[in-house]
Amino acid sequence: MASTEQQAAGSERADLDELVQGVRAGRPRSIGRVISMVENGAAELPALTALLAADTGQSYVVGITGAPGVGKSTTTAALVAALRDSGQRVGVLAVDPSSPFSGGALLGDRVRMQHHALDPSVYIRSMATRGHLGGLSVAAPAALRVFDAAGFDTVLVETVGVGQSEVEVAALADATLVLVAPGMGDGIQAAKAGILEIGDIFVVNKSDRDGAQPLIRELRNMIALGTRGPGEWQPPIVTTVANENRGIDELRQTIDTFRAAQQASGEHRRRRLGRARQEVEGLALGQLRAELRLSRSGLDELADRVRAGELDPYAAAAQLLARHG
Amino acid sequence: MASTEQQAAGSERADLDELVQGVRAGRPRSIGRVISMVENGAAELPALTALLAADTGQSYVVGITGAPGVGKSTTTAALVAALRDSGQRVGVLAVDPSSPFSGGALLGDRVRMQHHALDPSVYIRSMATRGHLGGLSVAAPAALRVFDAAGFDTVLVETVGVGQSEVEVAALADATLVLVAPGMGDGIQAAKAGILEIGDIFVVNKSDRDGAQPLIRELRNMIALGTRGPGEWQPPIVTTVANENRGIDELRQTIDTFRAAQQASGEHRRRRLGRARQEVEGLALGQLRAELRLSRSGLDELADRVRAGELDPYAAAAQLLARHG
Repeated sequence: MASTEQQAAGSERADLDELVQGVRAGRPRSIGRVISMVENGAAELPALTALLAADTGQSYVVGITGAPGVGKSTTTAALVAALRDSGQRVGVLAVDPSSPFSGGALLGDRVRMQHHALDPSVYIRSMATRGHLGGLSVAAPAALRVFDAAGFDTVLVETVGVGQSEVEVAALADATLVLVAPGMGDGIQAAKAGILEIGDIFVVNKSDRDGAQPLIRELRNMIALGTRGPGEWQPPIVTTVANENRGIDELRQTIDTFRAAQQASGEHRRRRLGRARQEVEGLALGQLRAELRLSRSGLDELADRVRAGELDPYAAAAQLLARHG
Repeated sequence: MASTEQQAAGSERADLDELVQGVRAGRPRSIGRVISMVENGAAELPALTALLAADTGQSYVVGITGAPGVGKSTTTAALVAALRDSGQRVGVLAVDPSSPFSGGALLGDRVRMQHHALDPSVYIRSMATRGHLGGLSVAAPAALRVFDAAGFDTVLVETVGVGQSEVEVAALADATLVLVAPGMGDGIQAAKAGILEIGDIFVVNKSDRDGAQPLIRELRNMIALGTRGPGEWQPPIVTTVANENRGIDELRQTIDTFRAAQQASGEHRRRRLGRARQEVEGLALGQLRAELRLSRSGLDELADRVRAGELDPYAAAAQLLARHG
């Protein structure tokens, strides 16, 4: 028995080594398998992560965010082309925190992305994080680490939806683009709700449409009213018509300028530290949550007393923690 | 010193008693103060919650969700009027998980709500939960408990934004309305991304517009393809033109029908148990997170080693937990 187990463990280890080799070589199949393992919170992740750790730290992560309809996918596809033209290998991670589906369900719709589908220097992947133990703050950096180890120079992270999750994803990016477009009643309104302050670069897409100029003025005013101090990066506004490829080169150059400024000021390093902090904390809390759930019957009994009004939730939480150890 | 401290503690306790009296009497000022305490995670919350616990369990909570622009605020305002006509006291809680602002910033825009602003049987409040220690899963039930203790018959919870937070809020409601509208490119697309499965009642608002019939057909097909088994509640579709008050009475009646069915099947009780479970777990995890953050320097040091690639995040999380005890 013991020797069979040892053999099994040995062959599992060999499988992991092969996967790691595949990721390092940038093989799409290996990358895809490991990101699926991230999604599913596979038991092998800690071992895999340890094996990949030495190859990480090189990718530049650009978050792309904005309300539905502003043209995130089109802009992402155009940026991929511009980055490819400058010789980079490019990864795209589309994060959908609310969807239980994954692995291309979303990207199936993305006609513009198909242009890049046969280019071996581009890897595109959507990821669902709903139900992931540690949530987005754990799953996204883990997936980014896979792209990083696979040697992609830039990884574009596109978020789906508006809200807390976008703010979380922005915290994981080295640079965050906030996209708005004229003619969307909720463009700036959505931006107001928290995403305005996370923008390093603002992109007014569909800038050939009516309403672009007032939108740019409104954005400029809001940026001026922001909390950024003198000496800090002042977010520029880039205008694009992504589906005609207009303004995309300027956008790519603006990202380069931002990157150089952040590296010079030390802010780049501070953000990466913040990302690591969030990930470590998320993993630790995920572990604690799993332990609390193992004592499921205890939680259920306490919750039922709270439901019935016999116990207040703070007292119940204290009892749960006391039982847990 | 000791007697001064005792006096201070005594006067704090007297303040809390007065607040609790105010909430029980339905005084807007007291309700507002306690909800601000919920938002800010005030130290007095456990004591307040214990004092209010006995008065809770009576309010019916209706979640109202949908993409920006479908008419959530208008529908909410119309429902408030319909519920008032049937003699109910009504609370409205607008939850914005991504905003750091609170206390009316959002509701200031809501002209339609001003109609109810002078009615003492209606209390309207927006709440930001960003930065709240336990997040939405803790703050929302705590706020709902305040409305409950204040004797509101129905509390309408309107969410802002699309995504994970809406799913979380739905988990807290006794009944969840999912709103869609024709002419929104992302109406069903947004609904697909997780919110379709949380709808107890679907509302096609702006149903006098072009595209309403195809939208209803599409919804009906998606509901039919859903995972609900025979004997389970089959979500009905109600058509409304909320800004003309059309369909609102039917919507109110559909909510009543749903409520009766859920109470008869025991599902109502199961959901409330789930809500209590989520809250207790959220409070316990919030407490653990606070403890991890107290050992801030430990987390920072580990995170910096992860950033530098010297340590993988799983190993860092394990070390953090080991230090925490």
